[in-house]
Amino acid sequence: MTPQVAADLRETNRIFEEEVVGRGDFEALNRVYTWGARILPPGAEMVGGRDAIKDFWRQAASAMQVTAIALRTVDVELLGETAVEIGRATITTKSGASEVKYVVVWKREDGSWKWHIDIWNPVS
Amino acid sequence: MTPQVAADLRETNRIFEEEVVGRGDFEALNRVYTWGARILPPGAEMVGGRDAIKDFWRQAASAMQVTAIALRTVDVELLGETAVEIGRATITTKSGASEVKYVVVWKREDGSWKWHIDIWNPVS
Repeated sequence: MTPQVAADLRETNRIFEEEVVGRGDFEALNRVYTWGARILPPGAEMVGGRDAIKDFWRQAASAMQVTAIALRTVDVELLGETAVEIGRATITTKSGASEVKYVVVWKREDGSWKWHIDIWNPVS
Repeated sequence: MTPQVAADLRETNRIFEEEVVGRGDFEALNRVYTWGARILPPGAEMVGGRDAIKDFWRQAASAMQVTAIALRTVDVELLGETAVEIGRATITTKSGASEVKYVVVWKREDGSWKWHIDIWNPVS
């Protein structure tokens, strides 16, 4: 992996942390997820397509009163126009913080690296 | 994806279903997971390395009294020597059945397709 790709992935994760969760700008998810992305949230069915994913995050952030999500990449492997990231996230809500681990399959789309498959589960 | 690759992936999943879970032959996990594989089970820390993964499955199958696991591929995408599979699994235990969804990143190792990163979570 080149430093440029690492910086590109970090920038996408920053958009999620700061713009989407931090400021509540769910339209910024356009720059986070590919158009045909799928997420697999724990305790729910898979959600397919960016518009449905925006609805999921709007509702989840509101229902759980999420105030911050911090992402930490544990490992990332580059495979051409795809990358596979293993990471951990701290989800902070008004009632406390919880740790999850995740796998994100990244794709380059329209010149940007975006989340294409996103699955997570709790650490404990 | 070629029919041959699809058949190869199916054969690895069959080994997990029939030999590992069905017959309790945890050494057959040598033919399921890569040497450096990692699993991300819900409610636990990530487990790295095939020997540790064998211990995990031995303990989980025994603690949960698992009698069968059936895997169903929902989608699979081939990227050279890697493939990304989204699937669902039915886990049957002595006290009932539960549904999970999963993402597996596959790698070719020693001529066989094996699970390299394996993460799952409950559907409900």
